[in-house]
Amino acid sequence: MPELVFPLDSSRPFEDQQLVGHNRWHPEIPPVATVRPGDTFRVHCREWFDGAIVNDDSAEDILNAPLKTVHKLSGPFAVEGAKPGDLLVVDILDVGPIPQEDSGPLAGQGWGYTGIFARSNGGGFLTDRFPDAYKAIWDFRGQTATSRHVPEVSFTGIVHPGLMGTAPSAGLLARWNQREGALIATDPDRVPPLALPPEPDGALLGGVPEADRQRVAGEAARTAPPRENGGNQDIKNLTKGTRVFYPVFVDGANFSVGDLHFSQGDGEITFCGAIEMGGFIDFHVDVIKGGMETYGVSENAIFLPGNTDPQYSEWIAFSGTSVTLEGEQCYLDSQLAYQRACLHAIDYLTNFGYSPEQAYLLLGAAPIEGRFSGVVDIPNSCATVYLPTAIFDFDVRPSAAGPHRIDPGTGAPHAAA
Amino acid sequence: MPELVFPLDSSRPFEDQQLVGHNRWHPEIPPVATVRPGDTFRVHCREWFDGAIVNDDSAEDILNAPLKTVHKLSGPFAVEGAKPGDLLVVDILDVGPIPQEDSGPLAGQGWGYTGIFARSNGGGFLTDRFPDAYKAIWDFRGQTATSRHVPEVSFTGIVHPGLMGTAPSAGLLARWNQREGALIATDPDRVPPLALPPEPDGALLGGVPEADRQRVAGEAARTAPPRENGGNQDIKNLTKGTRVFYPVFVDGANFSVGDLHFSQGDGEITFCGAIEMGGFIDFHVDVIKGGMETYGVSENAIFLPGNTDPQYSEWIAFSGTSVTLEGEQCYLDSQLAYQRACLHAIDYLTNFGYSPEQAYLLLGAAPIEGRFSGVVDIPNSCATVYLPTAIFDFDVRPSAAGPHRIDPGTGAPHAAA
Amino acid sequence: MPELVFPLDSSRPFEDQQLVGHNRWHPEIPPVATVRPGDTFRVHCREWFDGAIVNDDSAEDILNAPLKTVHKLSGPFAVEGAKPGDLLVVDILDVGPIPQEDSGPLAGQGWGYTGIFARSNGGGFLTDRFPDAYKAIWDFRGQTATSRHVPEVSFTGIVHPGLMGTAPSAGLLARWNQREGALIATDPDRVPPLALPPEPDGALLGGVPEADRQRVAGEAARTAPPRENGGNQDIKNLTKGTRVFYPVFVDGANFSVGDLHFSQGDGEITFCGAIEMGGFIDFHVDVIKGGMETYGVSENAIFLPGNTDPQYSEWIAFSGTSVTLEGEQCYLDSQLAYQRACLHAIDYLTNFGYSPEQAYLLLGAAPIEGRFSGVVDIPNSCATVYLPTAIFDFDVRPSAAGPHRIDPGTGAPHAAA
Amino acid sequence: MPELVFPLDSSRPFEDQQLVGHNRWHPEIPPVATVRPGDTFRVHCREWFDGAIVNDDSAEDILNAPLKTVHKLSGPFAVEGAKPGDLLVVDILDVGPIPQEDSGPLAGQGWGYTGIFARSNGGGFLTDRFPDAYKAIWDFRGQTATSRHVPEVSFTGIVHPGLMGTAPSAGLLARWNQREGALIATDPDRVPPLALPPEPDGALLGGVPEADRQRVAGEAARTAPPRENGGNQDIKNLTKGTRVFYPVFVDGANFSVGDLHFSQGDGEITFCGAIEMGGFIDFHVDVIKGGMETYGVSENAIFLPGNTDPQYSEWIAFSGTSVTLEGEQCYLDSQLAYQRACLHAIDYLTNFGYSPEQAYLLLGAAPIEGRFSGVVDIPNSCATVYLPTAIFDFDVRPSAAGPHRIDPGTGAPHAAA
Repeated sequence: MPELVFPLDSSRPFEDQQLVGHNRWHPEIPPVATVRPGDTFRVHCREWFDGAIVNDDSAEDILNAPLKTVHKLSGPFAVEGAKPGDLLVVDILDVGPIPQEDSGPLAGQGWGYTGIFARSNGGGFLTDRFPDAYKAIWDFRGQTATSRHVPEVSFTGIVHPGLMGTAPSAGLLARWNQREGALIATDPDRVPPLALPPEPDGALLGGVPEADRQRVAGEAARTAPPRENGGNQDIKNLTKGTRVFYPVFVDGANFSVGDLHFSQGDGEITFCGAIEMGGFIDFHVDVIKGGMETYGVSENAIFLPGNTDPQYSEWIAFSGTSVTLEGEQCYLDSQLAYQRACLHAIDYLTNFGYSPEQAYLLLGAAPIEGRFSGVVDIPNSCATVYLPTAIFDFDVRPSAAGPHRIDPGTGAPHAAA
Repeated sequence: MPELVFPLDSSRPFEDQQLVGHNRWHPEIPPVATVRPGDTFRVHCREWFDGAIVNDDSAEDILNAPLKTVHKLSGPFAVEGAKPGDLLVVDILDVGPIPQEDSGPLAGQGWGYTGIFARSNGGGFLTDRFPDAYKAIWDFRGQTATSRHVPEVSFTGIVHPGLMGTAPSAGLLARWNQREGALIATDPDRVPPLALPPEPDGALLGGVPEADRQRVAGEAARTAPPRENGGNQDIKNLTKGTRVFYPVFVDGANFSVGDLHFSQGDGEITFCGAIEMGGFIDFHVDVIKGGMETYGVSENAIFLPGNTDPQYSEWIAFSGTSVTLEGEQCYLDSQLAYQRACLHAIDYLTNFGYSPEQAYLLLGAAPIEGRFSGVVDIPNSCATVYLPTAIFDFDVRPSAAGPHRIDPGTGAPHAAA
Repeated sequence: MPELVFPLDSSRPFEDQQLVGHNRWHPEIPPVATVRPGDTFRVHCREWFDGAIVNDDSAEDILNAPLKTVHKLSGPFAVEGAKPGDLLVVDILDVGPIPQEDSGPLAGQGWGYTGIFARSNGGGFLTDRFPDAYKAIWDFRGQTATSRHVPEVSFTGIVHPGLMGTAPSAGLLARWNQREGALIATDPDRVPPLALPPEPDGALLGGVPEADRQRVAGEAARTAPPRENGGNQDIKNLTKGTRVFYPVFVDGANFSVGDLHFSQGDGEITFCGAIEMGGFIDFHVDVIKGGMETYGVSENAIFLPGNTDPQYSEWIAFSGTSVTLEGEQCYLDSQLAYQRACLHAIDYLTNFGYSPEQAYLLLGAAPIEGRFSGVVDIPNSCATVYLPTAIFDFDVRPSAAGPHRIDPGTGAPHAAA
Repeated sequence: MPELVFPLDSSRPFEDQQLVGHNRWHPEIPPVATVRPGDTFRVHCREWFDGAIVNDDSAEDILNAPLKTVHKLSGPFAVEGAKPGDLLVVDILDVGPIPQEDSGPLAGQGWGYTGIFARSNGGGFLTDRFPDAYKAIWDFRGQTATSRHVPEVSFTGIVHPGLMGTAPSAGLLARWNQREGALIATDPDRVPPLALPPEPDGALLGGVPEADRQRVAGEAARTAPPRENGGNQDIKNLTKGTRVFYPVFVDGANFSVGDLHFSQGDGEITFCGAIEMGGFIDFHVDVIKGGMETYGVSENAIFLPGNTDPQYSEWIAFSGTSVTLEGEQCYLDSQLAYQRACLHAIDYLTNFGYSPEQAYLLLGAAPIEGRFSGVVDIPNSCATVYLPTAIFDFDVRPSAAGPHRIDPGTGAPHAAA
C-alpha cells in the first residue's frame, strides 16, 4: 500500500478525524499534507453524505438528504513546487471501496446506494417526470453490483472518483461567484434552484483559521458543479490507470478528491445517480512546468483514460431529439435530447416489468454510454444512450416473441415530499 | 450482391436517373419499389449535394453549397404488409463507397469531403469562432482515410448512413411543421436560421403526380433534422451489422436512406462534418407486427450497433462545461458544454502546429467519441470528447518534452463570405 | 474499385481464364502482372477446390475432394524493384466474397462451406475421432453467417485470405523438398500422409513454358503448409486493415494469394475448416529496401492486424493438456493439448443437442480463439479454446438449471469412405 | 474485505504460519478450512518460492531456485456438500499483490520477478538458446509494471492466479503417477527432466498426520503440471470477474490456490515467466450438483473470463512453423511452431537494442497473446504471437526509417551454471 496521507476511521464522522477535509472550494483552505512530484500516496474518501444514507428499504433519507453538507472532500494536498501555470499530472493507480471492511453502516462497506432526489431537494435530470425520492441499495461482490431493489440485472462496476480538482485562485473564485450569482438572479426562487450560492450553513473548511472562517464560508464555492479546476465532473471513465492533467491556480496546486463511485452511467442522471460509496484511492503525481501555456490549457482537465474498464460488445441503444414531451420544438438542445433518449430507454424497460423508477435508477448506476450523435442538424440535436445487453439476466432485445417479464419485487423504496 | 432495387449512374444527376428519389419528407411521395419482409436488397446513394462539392483545393463550393437541394434520398421503399403501429426492422448488411469506381468527380469515387459551412450558409457547431467556409478532401485506401489538407493523421473510417427513416403520416408531418414554424417565428431573420421551413424551391418529390407537386412541395418537411421517424440522426455507430427498429407511420413504412458517411465524429460538428460520399448500402428488412405498442416505441429509433467498428484502446480526452467563452454561466446546457470540450480539443491541437480549422475538420471527420459525462451538477453540465491517439502519426499526449510540431502544409482551403 | 489486375469469370474454370494462376510454389512461375510500390490493386480469387464442392446436402464431394489440385492461387504479382533481402509490405485494403454475385453454384456467391475431411483423404485435427467426411453449408447475409446444417448459431465472419506469400528462391525450394522428403521417408505409407511431396498430377504452373513444365512440376512445392515465404498460414486475424511484411526471395517478390475465408476459428481445425469461398481482395504494396537484414526477418511474416475484427466480450473457454485420450502422458505437446481442449468444447456442446460433427464444424468456422496458455509446466502443455457466447441463440453457459436443448435438424451431411 | 480464511504473515516462512498449506497434490491432505456454497472469502497466497528470489541485480537466486519446494499452495478449502461428480463454481472476485505492503523483501510487496531458469535447473521454453539463468525485477505502480532490467516498456498487468484446482481422488492420483512415471522411464536422465516424480524431499503436506507423512510424501503429485483437476494451468485470462467450473473428485472438493501472477504472457515461456508475486485473492464459491455428468466435464476446467482485462487494440505479430532451427521438418508440432514464433519476436526486438534475454523476459511477463493459427496444414503448424505495441515507449513497427535504438542499460542479471 502506498503511504496513507489522508486516513479515515469508519466509526467516526468526517469532521471528527485525524485530518479534516472540506466541502467548499476556497484558495485559503490550507493543505492537510504535502507530497512531492513523483510521489505515490493513498487517500481515504468518505461517501458524499457522510453516512446520512443508510442500507435499508426506505427513501426517507434520500428525501431529506443534507445537500448543504456535500461533498466531503479529502485534501487539499499540496504538491511541492507546483506553481500557477503548471499542469498537475495525476495518475489514478487504484480506487475501490473501503478496504478490509465489507459490511457495516457506511456506504463503501460492501454496499452503495443510488438515489433519485425529490424535486424539492435538488431534483435530477428527469425531475418533471420523477418528482419524488427513490433509493436503490447495491451490493458489491468483487467488482460486480446487484440490487434487491432492481432485480435481474448485474454489472461490473466502472469504479472512479466523481470529484477531483485543484484549488481556485481568489480571482477565479470571484468569477465563479459572479457568474453563478448572475444566473441565480434570473430566477431566484426556482425549485430546484438554478445554481447554489455560497452557503455558510454546513460549510466545512478544513484548517481555515477560526478568525477567517466566517468570511471564507461566505465566499467559498459549493462543490456541486464542475468548473475550470475540474471538480465534480462525474466522468465515469476516470477509472484506474487514468492520467489527468489539471491546471494549477495556486501555489502547491492544492488538490482534493471525493465522491467515489462504484459505478455510474454517463450523465449520472438521477443526480445521486452513481453508486455512491466511500473508499480509497491511490495516486501518483507529477508536474509539467509551464504546461498550461505549452499545451494551451486554461481550464477543465485533459485526461488519458485507463484501459481496464469493463468491456461490453453488445448494446441496445435509444435516441432522442430536442423536442419536449409536450411537443415544443427547441433549438439544438442536447441536454433535452439526452433526456428524451433516457426517457425512451426507461419506457422501453417498463415493457419488461420494471417500474419507471427502477429503470431510472439503473440508468444512473450501470455503465451506460451517453453520446452526442448529431449537434448541428437544425433544429434538432440527436442524443443516444447505449445499454450493455449483458447486464440483464434475460434477452432485452426487441423480437417478434415479445418481451420477457421480470418480477419487479417490492420495487424501489419511495418517499414523497 | 443483393438485388439492386435503386440504381444510380454516376455520370448523371440524381434527378435524371432510372428511379428518382426525393429530398423532402411527405406521406404522399410514392414508393419507388416494394420489398417483402425477409428480403435483402441493395440501394445506391448519392452524396448529399449531388456533386456540387468537388475534389479541389478551393472552398468556394462549400461557401455556396446549395442547402435547399439536400438530402438526396434513395427511396421510399415500401415493405409489404407493414402497417402503422408496426416496427420496421432494418439490418444494415454492408455499406461503402461507390463500388467499382475508385476515381472520378463524384464524392464516393475513392474520396470524400468535410466542410465547415460559413455562418451565412448554415453555420455549424462552432460558427461563432469559425464564421467562414473551409474544406478538406479525404482520400480512401481500403477503409483508411487521409487528407492532403490535414496532415499526419490517418484513421479507419466508421462507415454509416447519416440518414435513414420511415415516411411521416400526414398528422405527424403537420405536427413537425407546426412546432418548427413556431420556433422560427421567435426569430425569423436569424442567421443561421433556427430551423428550415418547407421550401418549394429545390424540392424533389419523387413520383408525386404533377397535379399535387405544388401543394406537396409547400407541405413537405426538410430533411436536415432528425425527428420521430429517425431521419438525419447522424449516429456514427450505425455501421454494418447494425439492426435498427423504426416506428411505422404509413402503410408500407416507406423507408428512405441517404447521406452516407465514410466516417464521422460524434456530433458531426462542422455540419458538413462527416466525410461525405455516395455509395451503396445493403439491407435486410423485417416487420414486428404491433411492435410500437409491444415495446412502447412511438418515435425515434432503437438500435443494436454492429460489432465491427474500428477499435481503439487509447484516447486523449477533453472536458467542457456550460459556461460561454465570454464567461456567462448557463444552466445545465450540454450543447454548450460539448462546444467547450471541442474547442479545448481544437486549441490543444494547435500546439502541435495544426490550424484551428484543420483541427475542427478533423474532429468532424475522425471517429471521435462525444459523451454526456455530468448532466445534473447545477449549474454546469460536463461534456467530454475522446480522440483516439492512434490516428495521429506522432505522440499526441502531453509530456514534459513538449509537443511535436507538424508541417501544416498549405492548410485547409478557405473561402470567406 | 482499385484496378483489377487478376480477373476471374465465375462461369469458367480457373484454368480457363484470361490470366491463369498456379497451385504450386516455384521460382520459375512467371508473374501474371507487375505492380509498383505504392500501387493499389484488386485481385479475384477462386475458392480452393475451384467449384468441386457444391451447395447441397451431401458430403460425397468432401469425401472425394481433389486435394492434388489445390490451392488455386491468383498471381504471381511482381513488384517493381523488389529484390531478395527486401521486405514486401502488403496492406489488405478490403476482402470479401465475389462482388455483385450473391447466388450461384460457386462458393463465394452468397455462400461458403466447411468440410471435415475423411481420414482417407487428408484427415484433420481430430481425425481419430472423426474419420468420415462431413459438410456444412453457410449462408452469408452481409457479414453474418448461418447454416442449415448447424442450427441456432450465427456469427460475424472474420474475413481473411488463408494463403498469401512470396515465391521461394531455387535454394529455398530445394530445402523444402529435402526436409519434407526426409519426414515423409520416416513413414511413407502413413494415412493420412506426413507431408505432401511434389506432385505433377494436377499441377498448375501459370505461364511456365511448355518445355519446362515437366521439370518444374516435379520440383514445385505443394501449397498446403505455411513456410518461410508465408504461404498457407491460415491466420484468421489477417483481416482488412492488416499490414504484412514478407521476406523477398526472388526479383520482383512474386506475390500470390488465394484460399479466401469468410470466417475461421483459430487452427482451422477441420482442415477444410474455414468457411471456404472465392471472392476479391484489394491490396496496397510497398517495399522496405534491405528490410530483411534491418529487421532480422529471414522467414515467415510479421504483421500488424487490422482493427475491425468482429468484437466479442463474453466467452466460454475450455482447457486441455498433453495427455492422449487413451491416457498416455506426452511431453509438452501443445498440438495435443489443443486437440484435447477442442474435444472438451465439442463434448460440451453435445449436451445442448448438437452432434459432435456439428460442434466440430462450428469450431472450424466460427471466430473462436485458440491460445497457448502454459507451454513449460512439464510434462503438460495447457491449451485453451474460447468460444464467443454471443454466437449462440441461447445461453450456452453452465448453470444449475441445466442445458437448453436445440433441435439438431437433419444434422451435417455425412459420407463414409 | 471478505472473511479471511487463510492468512499469511509476510514476516514468517510459509511453513510457520497460523494455517499451513501444501506443495503437493494428495487426497489425504485435510482441508484447512470449510466454506459453504454461496460464501465469499479471502485467501492470502505466498509467491511460489516463498522468498528465495530477492529484489536485487543478481540471478544467482534464479540459478539455484529450489524447485522441489514449489508451489506454495493455500488450502485446501472444503466446500460443504460438494461431492464427486459435482462441478465446483469458483468466482474470482478480486486478486492482487499483498495488500497494505508496498515495499519489503517478499515478491508481492510492491514488486515481482521474472526468471529464465537455467537448463540445469528446469530450463524453459527456449532453453536450447537460453541455457543460463536470468532475472528481471518489476516494480508495480498501481496496475502498471516497469523494470530497471528491461527498459522503455511499461504495461498494465493482467493479474491472475497461475494455479487453482481441486484435490485428486486416490484413483486419479494413481493414474497421474503411472503415466508420468512411464514418460520419465523413456529417458530418466534427461536434463531438464521429462517430468517430475513424487519427491519426499521438500514435500509440504499441510495437516497430514505424522504417521502418514512418509507414505503420502512418496505418493503425492508434484504441482508443476496442469492436470484433470485444473492445477498449474497458467491461464493468463483467469483475471478478476472470471468464473471457473472445476470437476470435483473428493468429498468437499478440497480446493487450493497459489502462484499469483501480476502479469504473464501466453505460455509463461520462461517457465518462471510470469511476474511472480504473493498477494490475496477473493473467492465466491458454489456447487452445481451432478454437473460433471450434466455438462460432460470429466477433467480440466471450463471458464468464463472476466471483462476487465487490460485492453489493447494495436499489435505487432510474428509467426512460426514446425521446422527446427537446424532445419529439420517436424510434423504438425504447434509447440515448436510457437517456439519459432517467439524466437522471431525476440530476434526482432534485438534490432531495437534489447538483448535476447531482455526480450525473452518481456515475452514471459507482458500480456502477449499466443495463438494456434493453423494446426492441420501438413506438415507445418503455424503459431502466432501478438505483442501490444502500446507497451513500448517508442514505435516498434517496421518502417522505411529503420528501428529506434533503446539504451539497454545494465541488462538483465545473469548467472551461468
